[in-house]
Amino acid sequence: MKIDELDTPAVLIDLDRLERNIERMARYCREHGLALRPHTKTHKNPDIAKMQIAAGACGITVAKPGEAEIMVNAGIDDILLAYPIVSAQKAGRVADLATRARLRVSLDSREAIECLSRQAAARGVEIGILVEIDAGFGRCGVGTPEAALALAREVAENPAVRFDGLMFYPGHIKKPAAEQPPLIDAVNQRLDAHYEAFERAGIPITVVSGGSTATAFQSHLFHGLTEIRPGMYAFLDRNMVTVGVGGMDECAISVLVTVVSDAVPNRAMVDGGSKTFSSDALFVGDGRGFGWVIGNPDIDLIGFSEEHGHLDVSRAPGRLHVGERLRVVPNHVCTTINMHDRVFGIRGDRVDKAIDVTARGRVQ
Amino acid sequence: MKIDELDTPAVLIDLDRLERNIERMARYCREHGLALRPHTKTHKNPDIAKMQIAAGACGITVAKPGEAEIMVNAGIDDILLAYPIVSAQKAGRVADLATRARLRVSLDSREAIECLSRQAAARGVEIGILVEIDAGFGRCGVGTPEAALALAREVAENPAVRFDGLMFYPGHIKKPAAEQPPLIDAVNQRLDAHYEAFERAGIPITVVSGGSTATAFQSHLFHGLTEIRPGMYAFLDRNMVTVGVGGMDECAISVLVTVVSDAVPNRAMVDGGSKTFSSDALFVGDGRGFGWVIGNPDIDLIGFSEEHGHLDVSRAPGRLHVGERLRVVPNHVCTTINMHDRVFGIRGDRVDKAIDVTARGRVQ
Repeated sequence: MKIDELDTPAVLIDLDRLERNIERMARYCREHGLALRPHTKTHKNPDIAKMQIAAGACGITVAKPGEAEIMVNAGIDDILLAYPIVSAQKAGRVADLATRARLRVSLDSREAIECLSRQAAARGVEIGILVEIDAGFGRCGVGTPEAALALAREVAENPAVRFDGLMFYPGHIKKPAAEQPPLIDAVNQRLDAHYEAFERAGIPITVVSGGSTATAFQSHLFHGLTEIRPGMYAFLDRNMVTVGVGGMDECAISVLVTVVSDAVPNRAMVDGGSKTFSSDALFVGDGRGFGWVIGNPDIDLIGFSEEHGHLDVSRAPGRLHVGERLRVVPNHVCTTINMHDRVFGIRGDRVDKAIDVTARGRVQ
Repeated sequence: MKIDELDTPAVLIDLDRLERNIERMARYCREHGLALRPHTKTHKNPDIAKMQIAAGACGITVAKPGEAEIMVNAGIDDILLAYPIVSAQKAGRVADLATRARLRVSLDSREAIECLSRQAAARGVEIGILVEIDAGFGRCGVGTPEAALALAREVAENPAVRFDGLMFYPGHIKKPAAEQPPLIDAVNQRLDAHYEAFERAGIPITVVSGGSTATAFQSHLFHGLTEIRPGMYAFLDRNMVTVGVGGMDECAISVLVTVVSDAVPNRAMVDGGSKTFSSDALFVGDGRGFGWVIGNPDIDLIGFSEEHGHLDVSRAPGRLHVGERLRVVPNHVCTTINMHDRVFGIRGDRVDKAIDVTARGRVQ
């Protein structure tokens, strides 16, 4: 089938670019002796996860037990659940998975340790624990080496959980690579303080898990990292191109839309809005706009209704006509794919295959 | 099952409030002689659509052929597809539905007329057409009575389509009721010009479809309306309470979340983010914040990651603890429900039933 035969809106994944992006990150990690554990929240698809593992990833990262279940059921056996688990129901499901796969969980509270320990002990399994530290983003993670040490000791005192190391997410570093070093230095000061405290305490750290796509290719500048967890790198998007992780021509995701109305002067409406793209604003650069219209730099995607993308065509030399199709690079690949049950893998002008977003909707 | 037994995040629908909201709007429409055609994009569930019809709605509104298919398959037989259909594939599906249900479609272009006419004629069915006019929102809709007349005549010249009237969406009127009259007057000037032009031309207008939840209870102030298409009224949300359509205690939707981290000073993280709530900003009032934490006016939901809701608890008298559960009224009910395959109907502290968001993901 040709792309022209697809109805719209439809999310397109350029498989050649996807493969190159997966290989590029795998090569970077090989060169720098880093384990690569891609965050699969971006695509929620076991087949793409397996492509990442085939290229050298040591395993995967997920955000929810429901995502982990999809991946383990598909045969993936090394999973980091990078999210605090604090309900008995979820901890029970995670412990069930630990009977079938190697499971690590990140956390930053005694409550999470006790919750996981209880369920893992009941099933006779052991779950690896990464203590999350706050690298400066101010979301999750303890703020001092003493607090991290206290949690590591708490892990040691509880059955069926094993302290494996530290995790952090540098979500505040959303800058081009050239502007990252001072921010990374600040993270390194925090990391070094933790390493010294743990060494003094005689508690070995096996894993230090960091990374995001924005900082991924600077991971060698972070002290002591053993693995990174980028997700968006496999696709890129308008955010990641804006910070320079790759070029527009490396972006593997676009959304195919059709002009459905050109009745209002200086406007054209396409059939994808916030229920197709998500309403995520650009979270880097000038923060303006909701996507790039490929090949039409004079057309601005200025807003969304639920099912309408509002194009400002006042700067465009020609007029857009009802029925014309456009391809748009979305701001944020993770939330865009998450709107869809199915996306389409393409090569050139052909649709190669449908790709089910299998773990979409697994909100728990 | 009690609500306390649900794992989180979970979208809760208060069924008593839902029923009252449905009845309140039905009563308003009865009192003012208006047909009520609820937009089901809000809930995407045939059972709730049937509750609305049982309360007096004349039929329903949908945004996509895929949503219409779900509703017709569930036995609903009077549908307005309030969206321009410009692809042969979608027009074919709509024409198929017209063999089983009364179908109207809104549009604002010759291309849409020809596209629908061709597919309807091929199937020997007739589809009703509402010509969309721009009431001032600047999204879809023709801008002059002459353009509307030209489309009505185009409909008359094409087979298997029938001109039924006009449609508009006053999406720019997002103000409290007391501030709406001048804006409604401006819409009335546009409407009156159309009515005069159509009367002069001898083309009868059977239907004038307007309305949104923000303006719904002012619908009697619009000239010549015959029906309204509110969606959010059945649930309300932070936007609609902010403009005064109802009170917090009439809001039928909330999201049950759990505090998963309290490690960062002055912050607490809950297990619902943009993939649970959508990232829709408040589009009325001061535009700030992402939800109301019920019973905790001192806690501000200041931002979302994909799976984290970032609470600022610096103003709160007590501390939130890991494992605590909160209920949050989302900014926008339509996009919140759309993130979920299933939501939960509650009465008091009990879960009454699961409600499948059946038409979610029907993006085409």
